[in-house]
Amino acid sequence: MIKPRTPAGVMELLPRDQIAFQRMLDIIRQTFERFGFLPVETPVMELSEVLLTKSGGETERQVYFVQSTGALEKGGEGLPELALRFDLTVPLARYVAEHEHDLVFPFRRYQMQRVYRGERAQRGRFREFYQCDIDVIGKDTLSIRFDAELPAVIASVFERLAIGEFTIQLNHRKLLRGYFEGLGIAGEQQLLVLRELDKLDKRGAAAVRETLAGEGFGLSSDVIDRLMAFSQIRSHGHADALAKLDALGPGTALFEEGRAELRTILEQIRALGVPESRYALNLSIARGLDYYTGVVYETTLNAWPQIGSICSGGRYDNLAGHYTKSKLPGVGISIGLTRLFYQLREAGLVHTAESTVDVLVALLDDAGLAHALALSQRLRASGLNVETQLEPRKLKKQLEYADKAGIRFVVLRGEDEAARGVVAVKDLRRGEQFEVAEAELAATLLVEREQWRTGAGASA
Amino acid sequence: MIKPRTPAGVMELLPRDQIAFQRMLDIIRQTFERFGFLPVETPVMELSEVLLTKSGGETERQVYFVQSTGALEKGGEGLPELALRFDLTVPLARYVAEHEHDLVFPFRRYQMQRVYRGERAQRGRFREFYQCDIDVIGKDTLSIRFDAELPAVIASVFERLAIGEFTIQLNHRKLLRGYFEGLGIAGEQQLLVLRELDKLDKRGAAAVRETLAGEGFGLSSDVIDRLMAFSQIRSHGHADALAKLDALGPGTALFEEGRAELRTILEQIRALGVPESRYALNLSIARGLDYYTGVVYETTLNAWPQIGSICSGGRYDNLAGHYTKSKLPGVGISIGLTRLFYQLREAGLVHTAESTVDVLVALLDDAGLAHALALSQRLRASGLNVETQLEPRKLKKQLEYADKAGIRFVVLRGEDEAARGVVAVKDLRRGEQFEVAEAELAATLLVEREQWRTGAGASA
Repeated sequence: MIKPRTPAGVMELLPRDQIAFQRMLDIIRQTFERFGFLPVETPVMELSEVLLTKSGGETERQVYFVQSTGALEKGGEGLPELALRFDLTVPLARYVAEHEHDLVFPFRRYQMQRVYRGERAQRGRFREFYQCDIDVIGKDTLSIRFDAELPAVIASVFERLAIGEFTIQLNHRKLLRGYFEGLGIAGEQQLLVLRELDKLDKRGAAAVRETLAGEGFGLSSDVIDRLMAFSQIRSHGHADALAKLDALGPGTALFEEGRAELRTILEQIRALGVPESRYALNLSIARGLDYYTGVVYETTLNAWPQIGSICSGGRYDNLAGHYTKSKLPGVGISIGLTRLFYQLREAGLVHTAESTVDVLVALLDDAGLAHALALSQRLRASGLNVETQLEPRKLKKQLEYADKAGIRFVVLRGEDEAARGVVAVKDLRRGEQFEVAEAELAATLLVEREQWRTGAGASA
Repeated sequence: MIKPRTPAGVMELLPRDQIAFQRMLDIIRQTFERFGFLPVETPVMELSEVLLTKSGGETERQVYFVQSTGALEKGGEGLPELALRFDLTVPLARYVAEHEHDLVFPFRRYQMQRVYRGERAQRGRFREFYQCDIDVIGKDTLSIRFDAELPAVIASVFERLAIGEFTIQLNHRKLLRGYFEGLGIAGEQQLLVLRELDKLDKRGAAAVRETLAGEGFGLSSDVIDRLMAFSQIRSHGHADALAKLDALGPGTALFEEGRAELRTILEQIRALGVPESRYALNLSIARGLDYYTGVVYETTLNAWPQIGSICSGGRYDNLAGHYTKSKLPGVGISIGLTRLFYQLREAGLVHTAESTVDVLVALLDDAGLAHALALSQRLRASGLNVETQLEPRKLKKQLEYADKAGIRFVVLRGEDEAARGVVAVKDLRRGEQFEVAEAELAATLLVEREQWRTGAGASA
């Protein structure tokens, strides 16, 4: 006998939690499609040579390689032929380059699949997790108007997920780098300074100041003051965001370019009707130090800052330089749904869902089977999810089962009900029982279900 | 520069084919839920020790093992710790055994995920493919009434997929084995004879007869006649199925048990309202020679027998004997969707889908941007999938784009329309153009979309 268990670092859910997770996936997908994004799925295995274009580095340390029994036995030098994707961005780059001539640009795609990283196993860290990504890829150029559309998509996703107040925080790499330029911080050093400022939350202001003043950086305390002040800028509301940008004073050409882009993006987010409480400047955001080149986004839950960013991304200059000579600028954003779901559950913000089953058609004795089957099929044909009790049991047991399984309605038909052409319905959620003509049963239950979904119960 | 490409033996789709594939997944999932099945997802990686409980064998030859860079460098003896699942049945067994005390039995689950097999690469063979499985697992016992419910689910799935006439074919392992017993074929030899009969389609009757008469089998020509006649039995319609069962004459206790169960199953399939053209006896079906113990199913497309079974399964005695002492009988059925989709496309039975995008809101000049954004958001709020043209282009280009992308409606608003409070709508599918008051645009397009979906276009 072998102990049944999953590997460390994966999330496996019981059915009612899986239903809650699936609802989040459905809402995200529906919202991505609402904004005109198209579905893409890529194989979980990529050719190692294609996946690992940047040799060495932290990423490769975390890659899982795949080998068939035959290849394993043969052994051999070098990397195995196949590897599991570690994100959805490299597969997107490969996909766009491979299918370049069959795609229409700007190419708007969403992708919601699992990715794999050989992380050290620890609580809340996953080796297999869902990413839900949208990206828009241009050919040669891509209007910054797309940079404003993505926050509108994300705002819509999180409104509909109903997991509490949230803020999409924006910064801009040109604004950052331009500001550094203005302070005489150039080239390589910009990245190093950025990396230090990125640690403000973790290390605290005093420690970061000390590092920036010390060997290797040697920044003056005036410059450090300005850097700290700059990275602490947050806006509250649309007008304040524009005012805070204005108040930064004049800067280098690059700085002004970043500022102008941010202004345009902010204005367009407003034109898209995103409530102004949902977006803000946060000039401390750096993200993907050498990857992003324009706007960068992070999203936080206002009441749960400790969860960190739940949705991040930004603008990049060239998606697929390793695979094609075409220049493919893009902008994208990603939700790490497995981690988010885990955190929301820890925080008590998502709950075990009711069943996907709307109705249990009860069975009191074998004589009732044919009717129970036919009734179940009629209810299904009208759009209800129905489980039939196929073997008779005590009614009490059937009700207990429905309750445990999270099924709202139990439909019964004893001799008395049969004689009168009605069925009895137990509404386990409301703790009520009522009778309804059998011909009206489906319509009645559909109305009840719809009312619950759109009414008070929508967030349950 | 590295050539962007996928590994051999995977299916990757362009967006409009992905949409067609996704629609099939959606229909299957919705139908599974309609019948009260609950979602389960398991990790793609299982512990090798847990996955490979049966040592050796064909299966293990096809398994993909997974190793992180660290583990790969360390090398070491024995199998790698992790492996990719090769079906959804072993993970189900592990899941049910692991979560036994948190599940309610009979446990009805569906699972739609990808599985991995190191097949030899050849056309139409996949190393990564979707399986869409339903199983009902009992504790200690499971009523055979579930054996009749599964064909009703499958009939509903394929009705809704609208890929042509199909037949769910049934046989029963007890009927088969009982019939063999009656002919004096016992024990091990039953499996060997079954395996030969299973080759009838491929090898032809003469070759199979020869083998059965030859060394190792040595069956008399009378016995072979009976075996051939038995395995050629097919029914046409419900009454014929029952009559064919009756006409088999008396048999051993096991044979009679199998016949009685098949009768009960056939009667219940009819009680579930499955059209009688959709199910039939086919006494040649064997399937999974040592796995199934009761009813077995195969499903074929009437006009495409060469595609083979598109959905197969059956009853088994004990799901998880490797993981738990509990006896867990079950019945299940599986659709190999990747292969099916591939075959349907080859046969011209599925087509590139229209876009998920319902509407392109065109943009004629920058002055129109704010209105285009606001209009797009209003259409989205009413449930339409909308792409906004974010940079102005010649109208002709925008129409060409919509046409290529498979978007049905293009909405325009020039100065003239703006002055009159209307928008112009181009319906690219119908090749028509009409005007509508802006306030009524969403409702108009929703009605058009609904009519198409439920009307003539439903199967498109």
